[in-house]
Amino acid sequence: MTNERLLRLALFGSGRIGQVHARNIAANPELELAVIADPFIDGAQRLAADSGAQAVSDPEEVFSHGDIDGVVIGSPTNTHVDLISRSVARGLAVLCEKPIDLDIDTVRACQEQIGGYSVPIMLGFNRRFDPAFAAMHRRVAAGEIGPLEQLTITSRDPAPAPRDYIAASGGIFRDMTIHDLDMARFFVPDIVEVSASGANVFSEEIADFDDYDSAIVTLRGSRGELISITNSRHCSFGYDQRLEAFGPDGMLSAGNVAPTTVKKYGGAGTEHADPYMPFFLERYAQAYAAELQAFADSIRTGEPCSPDFGDGVTALVLANAAAESAATGRTVSVAGTAAATAG
Amino acid sequence: MTNERLLRLALFGSGRIGQVHARNIAANPELELAVIADPFIDGAQRLAADSGAQAVSDPEEVFSHGDIDGVVIGSPTNTHVDLISRSVARGLAVLCEKPIDLDIDTVRACQEQIGGYSVPIMLGFNRRFDPAFAAMHRRVAAGEIGPLEQLTITSRDPAPAPRDYIAASGGIFRDMTIHDLDMARFFVPDIVEVSASGANVFSEEIADFDDYDSAIVTLRGSRGELISITNSRHCSFGYDQRLEAFGPDGMLSAGNVAPTTVKKYGGAGTEHADPYMPFFLERYAQAYAAELQAFADSIRTGEPCSPDFGDGVTALVLANAAAESAATGRTVSVAGTAAATAG
Amino acid sequence: MTNERLLRLALFGSGRIGQVHARNIAANPELELAVIADPFIDGAQRLAADSGAQAVSDPEEVFSHGDIDGVVIGSPTNTHVDLISRSVARGLAVLCEKPIDLDIDTVRACQEQIGGYSVPIMLGFNRRFDPAFAAMHRRVAAGEIGPLEQLTITSRDPAPAPRDYIAASGGIFRDMTIHDLDMARFFVPDIVEVSASGANVFSEEIADFDDYDSAIVTLRGSRGELISITNSRHCSFGYDQRLEAFGPDGMLSAGNVAPTTVKKYGGAGTEHADPYMPFFLERYAQAYAAELQAFADSIRTGEPCSPDFGDGVTALVLANAAAESAATGRTVSVAGTAAATAG
Amino acid sequence: MTNERLLRLALFGSGRIGQVHARNIAANPELELAVIADPFIDGAQRLAADSGAQAVSDPEEVFSHGDIDGVVIGSPTNTHVDLISRSVARGLAVLCEKPIDLDIDTVRACQEQIGGYSVPIMLGFNRRFDPAFAAMHRRVAAGEIGPLEQLTITSRDPAPAPRDYIAASGGIFRDMTIHDLDMARFFVPDIVEVSASGANVFSEEIADFDDYDSAIVTLRGSRGELISITNSRHCSFGYDQRLEAFGPDGMLSAGNVAPTTVKKYGGAGTEHADPYMPFFLERYAQAYAAELQAFADSIRTGEPCSPDFGDGVTALVLANAAAESAATGRTVSVAGTAAATAG
Repeated sequence: MTNERLLRLALFGSGRIGQVHARNIAANPELELAVIADPFIDGAQRLAADSGAQAVSDPEEVFSHGDIDGVVIGSPTNTHVDLISRSVARGLAVLCEKPIDLDIDTVRACQEQIGGYSVPIMLGFNRRFDPAFAAMHRRVAAGEIGPLEQLTITSRDPAPAPRDYIAASGGIFRDMTIHDLDMARFFVPDIVEVSASGANVFSEEIADFDDYDSAIVTLRGSRGELISITNSRHCSFGYDQRLEAFGPDGMLSAGNVAPTTVKKYGGAGTEHADPYMPFFLERYAQAYAAELQAFADSIRTGEPCSPDFGDGVTALVLANAAAESAATGRTVSVAGTAAATAG
Repeated sequence: MTNERLLRLALFGSGRIGQVHARNIAANPELELAVIADPFIDGAQRLAADSGAQAVSDPEEVFSHGDIDGVVIGSPTNTHVDLISRSVARGLAVLCEKPIDLDIDTVRACQEQIGGYSVPIMLGFNRRFDPAFAAMHRRVAAGEIGPLEQLTITSRDPAPAPRDYIAASGGIFRDMTIHDLDMARFFVPDIVEVSASGANVFSEEIADFDDYDSAIVTLRGSRGELISITNSRHCSFGYDQRLEAFGPDGMLSAGNVAPTTVKKYGGAGTEHADPYMPFFLERYAQAYAAELQAFADSIRTGEPCSPDFGDGVTALVLANAAAESAATGRTVSVAGTAAATAG
Repeated sequence: MTNERLLRLALFGSGRIGQVHARNIAANPELELAVIADPFIDGAQRLAADSGAQAVSDPEEVFSHGDIDGVVIGSPTNTHVDLISRSVARGLAVLCEKPIDLDIDTVRACQEQIGGYSVPIMLGFNRRFDPAFAAMHRRVAAGEIGPLEQLTITSRDPAPAPRDYIAASGGIFRDMTIHDLDMARFFVPDIVEVSASGANVFSEEIADFDDYDSAIVTLRGSRGELISITNSRHCSFGYDQRLEAFGPDGMLSAGNVAPTTVKKYGGAGTEHADPYMPFFLERYAQAYAAELQAFADSIRTGEPCSPDFGDGVTALVLANAAAESAATGRTVSVAGTAAATAG
Repeated sequence: MTNERLLRLALFGSGRIGQVHARNIAANPELELAVIADPFIDGAQRLAADSGAQAVSDPEEVFSHGDIDGVVIGSPTNTHVDLISRSVARGLAVLCEKPIDLDIDTVRACQEQIGGYSVPIMLGFNRRFDPAFAAMHRRVAAGEIGPLEQLTITSRDPAPAPRDYIAASGGIFRDMTIHDLDMARFFVPDIVEVSASGANVFSEEIADFDDYDSAIVTLRGSRGELISITNSRHCSFGYDQRLEAFGPDGMLSAGNVAPTTVKKYGGAGTEHADPYMPFFLERYAQAYAAELQAFADSIRTGEPCSPDFGDGVTALVLANAAAESAATGRTVSVAGTAAATAG
């Protein structure tokens, strides 16, 4: 590896998630951050100052750069499809934050346009790279609990996003549950039915947007696997991210992560652990780094990446089905969707 | 208390559950087991030999006895309605194992017949008396986590019941889930919607009875509470009985119970705990005793008991709704049911 | 068993520990409490009223009773030697609370006097019967962790005993540590060296009695096993009773016991468990019952009981050695003691 | 920070621990690795190739370099005193791996020689920087459990070091326990008594060197604090590194660290966690990085560093006392030592 040249990447977006990627690129000995593009040029310049990258405001400067291997797209959702299409057209590998787009037609049009692409297009469902979830996945795949029968996903955000974010989010299923839907597909790729219930239990603001602040989704896999997802837009004890995989030969669980193993015992109770990781930047710090490494590996080897564009499409299809089911009270069949959309 | 006379009880049924009740009556200093009735008179006599009770084969001998305060019904399901009706008619307090009956019309007819009864009629949803679940209930009721928003119930039997039992069970929802439906109502009495998914993932025998071996049920309470129930008819690591109650101010959980706190650490892994309690007789041993005490308290004080006949009716209504939802793929509204059925 | 007649026991002492034994005798289907002897006759009568036993004030009434199989001695320490000697002389089996006596010469004189006794004489080191510690012992004995190399005993009382109790207690090593010394011998019968450090860190009252409120004791077994005992006379989070057994093939641990598995998660922290069992009556409730059963088994079978009189002698020898070591700063050799004292 | 120039460091030793420091210097944005010195020049060159540093074989090239702020000493123990003395003489800050030397006279001579030094001299007791232990220390210092009364340190290596290492190690107390002795002083700086027991329970090789493979050490602080250290040279379940701090208002514990939170439940048992971190490189990875940061902070601010040279001296004094106590069976007084040796 040390003999190979560094992979040179461009980064779209210098916001919170862009900064995560910039740091991880800097810390990865195989990668180099060449360009940071953001119409908000101040952000790009600030981030570039730390990393030695070039800051540009026009994405075109990335595409015409000539010495770049791939792009990381961390810009707003409504720019994703355009940047993916243009990157693929230039033969650049793509790592794009989820979602591809909130509109399935736009997504399908993009899918058609980039049909036959040969570069890696990776979707940023970072949780697949969480060390605990990845270890569970390997062990389930190795048959440790027998054929998976039930999967329980608990996923609660610490607090609602700001009003503006909620307004543009596409709703809880497309914005938040979509991560859990992809996690479901990480374990059970072929989902055939979606049933969802949404509720408004604490936020008038979210209700005002005709969105839910609480939801439970049930999925069925093609072999009868049943998957339960429990979501809430708030959680007083941190970022609640847990998984249980159940089969005939046992169960594997992955619990929440605390910063240390320190526990307190006193008159008020015992075994009192630290608060959990506050949110995704802390909880999934290792996952973001591992995701980037997988992207780099895919560029070097040409092997298909996972999760890929098709996984992004399918997650949106499932999110739409969940929204439909919550609205109609009917189970929505999505049989064949995964196969149809797989990139 | 020690000055009061003992409450004298009759027990219908000398099978497994009858034996549990006989032992608990013997161990309770307020109670005395006067009669054990079982058409299988050998069983009654064997159990009576240990307890000093009288063994009879004809239930009528209980009703004509004259010196009895209440009855505990642990006989087969198809005898429940008859025994309840006759007991109530004689003014005897009743503790009846669930379910009242598998047929809702029969149950409603019984309910009408005993309308206006003034004796305690308690339904044997023993889990309400489990020390951990009861403690959680008290703490939720005391507002410790704020208004309940989500309840997660995990409930897996260690292994499928025998073929004959399955055949007569009424199906997973009426036989097994019904306990979890009552647990849901323990925390959220007013359920308005039921949505269920069933699957067949491991047992051809169960499938042959057009029954499911795996199920997930979602309930909605009248205030938007969402409740998830995960069921399986098998579980390699014991009897899986867990609860999580989530609200704006925190979460309370109750985990599985191991016989001791011993853990093993070795080359193969760490913190390896004992297998959990194997099944309900062990897991809910304390619950059965506490249930009996609550029954005794209700007889003495005349206070309404909980869970009562109406809770038994409602649990069956919810189980029927779950079966319907699993069959149709539609959410079933049960709004108003609880109110209508409450005894 | 059900065909055999009940074993009839007499109980000396109607105080706190006497009440525990009276309840356990009542709950044990093999045992019957015939007589309760206490010079404080009111206490004996009150306890007798519940159990149907005869209340007497003079111990001689027990010895002349004629229809008794064994005695349980729960009276004050300074009565133990006399009651043991007289009971053994009458051929009555003995279960005696620890310690035999605080004075080793008195103990040895008693040992000589009852030499050649053929009835079971059991010492009330109840912790050997705790389900968790007993399970650990079985697993260590079965070789699960290989030859035991290190044993770590943590033992803290919730709060100091009253002034009068401390005054007559014989000091922390003879009163409190003695239980842990017997636990050490449960796993490593042949102790050869004792080294102890005592300190006064919180109680002026205890210091006034030239006693310690905090202590650490190190023991060495004849095969090089090292055992650490940590004691404190107070503990804000309950009765702290833990064990770790370490060997080449792994470690077994037994932790504290909480009344339920309920945990709380909130803004102030996570996994907050219930307070532990408050003190020995709760923590060792099962142990007391199991101890009584073992005593009954020993009476019936004539098999040697464990722990026996010799174990009581050895525990006192070790406690005296600990006191000497704490005073002199020297490791005290006790090699050969166990062999010499073993009953 | 970003405006300040990088601190330039030299590293002595390119072995295992030198590589850890080199990586951490590379990852620290405030630091730059200028020179790597190792008489085994191949190792220095290999490490330098990755980091861009200069590789030299003669330490003098470091001292004559002219553009260096501090040195990190990761070379063999017998070089430490010489390199510390020469570094301090050149005004270079020092971070030196423990121990300073195995011979206390040599250490004291060095201490005298560098008397009046004004540069930071930090000793590599890295465990003080472990996030869990550091958090416990902060909370104890903040009074969360009241005045510390008892400290329990469990410290077991996964497997004995190779024969050559053991031969030159100075024995278990000076080589292994010394870390735990410093941990004791992290919480209780003023130790007044040392009592130790060593044993040989599994390794003939270690016994051949007149060294112990198992040990328990008891320390007393000047306020009566009692500290227990349990050591073993092997541990089948990984690197066992735990701490419990006990006071009147509660207890804080820090347990072992597993790579993920994944647990397995099956027929053989439940809650089966991953093996713990295998050894110090993994377990204390964060601690090494934090230690380096503290060293950098000390260079920049001129504030005294901790642990410092005096802490290294005191740890060796305590280790010698432990060896003496284990050999003689007497408690060894070290009162006044800490004060006398504090740098």
